[in-house]
Amino acid sequence: MAKDNGVSLSVIKRLPKYYRYLESINDRGIVRVSSKELSEITGLTASQIRQDLNHYGCFGQQGYGYNVRELMDELSKIIGVDKKYKMVLVGFGNIGHALYQYKTFKDLGYNIDAVFDLEARESNENDPEILDIEKLPQYLKDNKVDIGIISTPKDASQGVCDILCEGNVSGIWNFSPVDIKTKNDVVLENVHLDESLFTLTYFINSPEDFNF
Amino acid sequence: MAKDNGVSLSVIKRLPKYYRYLESINDRGIVRVSSKELSEITGLTASQIRQDLNHYGCFGQQGYGYNVRELMDELSKIIGVDKKYKMVLVGFGNIGHALYQYKTFKDLGYNIDAVFDLEARESNENDPEILDIEKLPQYLKDNKVDIGIISTPKDASQGVCDILCEGNVSGIWNFSPVDIKTKNDVVLENVHLDESLFTLTYFINSPEDFNF
Repeated sequence: MAKDNGVSLSVIKRLPKYYRYLESINDRGIVRVSSKELSEITGLTASQIRQDLNHYGCFGQQGYGYNVRELMDELSKIIGVDKKYKMVLVGFGNIGHALYQYKTFKDLGYNIDAVFDLEARESNENDPEILDIEKLPQYLKDNKVDIGIISTPKDASQGVCDILCEGNVSGIWNFSPVDIKTKNDVVLENVHLDESLFTLTYFINSPEDFNF
Repeated sequence: MAKDNGVSLSVIKRLPKYYRYLESINDRGIVRVSSKELSEITGLTASQIRQDLNHYGCFGQQGYGYNVRELMDELSKIIGVDKKYKMVLVGFGNIGHALYQYKTFKDLGYNIDAVFDLEARESNENDPEILDIEKLPQYLKDNKVDIGIISTPKDASQGVCDILCEGNVSGIWNFSPVDIKTKNDVVLENVHLDESLFTLTYFINSPEDFNF
């Protein structure tokens, strides 16, 4: 949900995609890229790509295109992946467990510093120490946490969200299959797996609406 | 990505949300609902909701609104959740494991019938039998599979996607952090966790763009 201040959510959602593509061609040692080449990889039009990037002051050079490394650096600042984030995970069920182990985030420098669930548990070889959810408010007082990840059952998620907001996190990444409301200017990003699966079955039943 | 045939992807993506809300109020025994009430729960405008639903021939009645059960049934047909889907899961890492166990899908009648990974493994108390990925093409010949879920490392995902498309699945639900291309009219839905996290950090760094 983006405000009417000129940046639409669709543009914002495309930035990570550009970043990912630039990262992959940078890994292959490619130094410069045109919007036309980016268009071929991403499937978006070259003019859309230029417009999106211009919007953030990233201008390509006529006849040269974009310097891959420079554009990546610019985008990493805009997306905020140039910083480190302290995260806590609340809800250590299957999804929580998978997120805790997810290698990609660790590689990117996103670290889960503490994990909370209904019952405290000692750490073992694969799992971290689990703290009692009752300790979350105090933990948030004692530690500056940037992102709270919610992967609790849906009945618990708004309550956890409230605690995280009171504890002054900057953002919440919600995996519980329900819409929650943040307060105190805490931003929210949802991963609703059920909605994603329903979108897929929609397209399976209406393939004419799908852009192959 | 929706085609230019009148239905935008934003509308399609909102349908599962409407369905979810209707389900929750239906569970509470609510029989009818106005677009204004739906607006209050969803945060979308009443006129947008009416427009979205009209698009699919779901018209509310002046002074009455929508019959919750009827609208749910209509939406379930449109989204395709009135049917059962046979699914296979490829890649039994952390994400694959979480998806296999995900209770919500099981409750909805989405069943994962077979799981493939690099090495075959016997089933144990928590995990299913894992079949060797080499058996996937034959499995797809012998069984009608609707949905292939890809939760492999990114280097393997396009190859798996090709096998699934050759094996005539109807749709692919991709969790690997890379863009893959389907063929043979197979529809695709991606869950890119990295892009979702980057969207969150974007908003943390540009909260003025977030619609609180």
